[in-house]
Amino acid sequence: MNEYDKYMKTCFKLAQKGMGRTSPNPLVGCVVIDREGNIISTGYHKKYGENHAERDALLKLDKNTAKDGTLVVNLEPCNHYGKTPPCTDIIIEYGIKRVVISSRDTNPKAAGGIKRLQDAGIEVIQGVLEEEGNKLNEIFFTNINEKRTFVALKTATTIDGKIATSTGDSKWITSDKAREYAYKLRKQYDAILTSSSTVIADNPKMVHKNKIIIDRCLRCDFSSEIFKQGEIYLFTQKAPSECPKLPQIEFICSKELSLQYVLNELYKRKIMSVFVEAGGKLSGAFLKEGLIDKLYHFTAPKILNDNTGKSAFDGDSVASVKFAKEFHLESIKKLTPDVLLTYTRS
Amino acid sequence: MNEYDKYMKTCFKLAQKGMGRTSPNPLVGCVVIDREGNIISTGYHKKYGENHAERDALLKLDKNTAKDGTLVVNLEPCNHYGKTPPCTDIIIEYGIKRVVISSRDTNPKAAGGIKRLQDAGIEVIQGVLEEEGNKLNEIFFTNINEKRTFVALKTATTIDGKIATSTGDSKWITSDKAREYAYKLRKQYDAILTSSSTVIADNPKMVHKNKIIIDRCLRCDFSSEIFKQGEIYLFTQKAPSECPKLPQIEFICSKELSLQYVLNELYKRKIMSVFVEAGGKLSGAFLKEGLIDKLYHFTAPKILNDNTGKSAFDGDSVASVKFAKEFHLESIKKLTPDVLLTYTRS
Repeated sequence: MNEYDKYMKTCFKLAQKGMGRTSPNPLVGCVVIDREGNIISTGYHKKYGENHAERDALLKLDKNTAKDGTLVVNLEPCNHYGKTPPCTDIIIEYGIKRVVISSRDTNPKAAGGIKRLQDAGIEVIQGVLEEEGNKLNEIFFTNINEKRTFVALKTATTIDGKIATSTGDSKWITSDKAREYAYKLRKQYDAILTSSSTVIADNPKMVHKNKIIIDRCLRCDFSSEIFKQGEIYLFTQKAPSECPKLPQIEFICSKELSLQYVLNELYKRKIMSVFVEAGGKLSGAFLKEGLIDKLYHFTAPKILNDNTGKSAFDGDSVASVKFAKEFHLESIKKLTPDVLLTYTRS
Repeated sequence: MNEYDKYMKTCFKLAQKGMGRTSPNPLVGCVVIDREGNIISTGYHKKYGENHAERDALLKLDKNTAKDGTLVVNLEPCNHYGKTPPCTDIIIEYGIKRVVISSRDTNPKAAGGIKRLQDAGIEVIQGVLEEEGNKLNEIFFTNINEKRTFVALKTATTIDGKIATSTGDSKWITSDKAREYAYKLRKQYDAILTSSSTVIADNPKMVHKNKIIIDRCLRCDFSSEIFKQGEIYLFTQKAPSECPKLPQIEFICSKELSLQYVLNELYKRKIMSVFVEAGGKLSGAFLKEGLIDKLYHFTAPKILNDNTGKSAFDGDSVASVKFAKEFHLESIKKLTPDVLLTYTRS
């Protein structure tokens, strides 16, 4: 237990207020405390292009009040000109005496913050609740460290793992409460991703600012609900000449159309995270290729009792349980009557 | 919050120490407290045929110490001669002033305890943590109120609900920790119940004092591990004349052999609870007939990713999710890396 833990937890909470709006930037919260440990200002990164958390917090103070204060922030302050000037500048300018950090910023562009502060005579305490801080920015760190789009995948099944009957009936397995929670999760990601099969079978709205559809053979009816709102990226194996001209849809054509290709193209377009909601075939393909970073598994307290019902993951035939893909249980949330089990890459 | 809650919780803990050994009797714990609220004695029902909890607690005291004390017990004291004399007698004899109870005893044979105590001038406080008290004795109350054997069923699946690959490989889906916990659960029930299919496919030991096997066509090899220990009740559609003479096996023959018949025969034999560990067919049959009182659903953090893998419940083809059987989530237990979700009849 570090004396700054409680302030860092406040930073995490502040940071989360920006969730879904800061991409490709990280989630950052900041508190400034005086010598007695009173919080004298708070701030957070509200939206991409707007002030970083440190600047947001400091600009609420006059320099006399901030002087000799301690600034607590969940990510190493940046040291570069992006959309806004370096955070290190304003921290030094305000006469802050001590900076407390959770995660290091591994973004090479932004790095050097700690050194710059230390060179200016500021005490820097690092690694406070670091694991939690890294988890909070798992999308950002995946983007920066692995240079790829983060993939979350949602399943909503019966106790016996079914997403639909053999005839395709799936309305509804989970409760309103679980579905509403899933809508909230969606918003934390830059885009939602689904397949033409889901569009054709369920005609879902899938409200989101960015929607990715994988439609190898251009089977979708473009008057479906999903096309009525948001920016659409449609991946297909058809040639560009075979794609209709529709203003809300960007057609991305590839003969092979691997999921890796899809993710690369999304990363190029600064779609830093996707939330996959699809049927067993597409979910199974993401799984098979080891592309799932996070799995949101909703379980309703129901049993379909039908081995021919549709499984959440429908990949290849597997001969031994040794070949099952392993995950790591991250958290359990009751959404009575349902449960959400969240898993991460193992 | 009742002033006796904490004492009642102690009774529940004491009662649980008898788990697996009191059947067909209930689980009962008892504490005796003096006027200042100090616990001066504790007791519990250790085993069928031995002293009831009240007697166990009171016999540790001399009558002068017990006099004017308060006796807290999770079940209404019995008022009849069974294996032991009525608990009401000894409570009155010891000069107890007040009796605090959680659950009423709905067993008609034992009933009348409260009235008898009140007639003797003892103050009776009822219904303290009653819901918890009733849950603790769910097997007993099902036996008494519904005159039938309580059925618990265990499944151990991947996230996608599979108990085995399509080729039958199932070793091991869950972790050692989860399997050990399942062994503990087994012991809480009077018998374990499985099918010839499981015996043939997995040749499990299934260590237990009582084992029920459903083997319609007498397909089991009687040299299998399961037959090497315990009392065996084997249900079959074959005629008695077709069954071998084996000392450890009671063959119970019925042309129709419905699960209801099986449970009735078990109830007659004072097997008051069973723990079903079987494949999808038998689990699916129990489910279809609405016979599952409690479901222990272990989930390993693995995905088989194979729609042809074996589901935990393999009943009939179901056309709509509306026909899925509903349960009620009772509790969640982490058995890292696995999770146990416990459901009850909804």
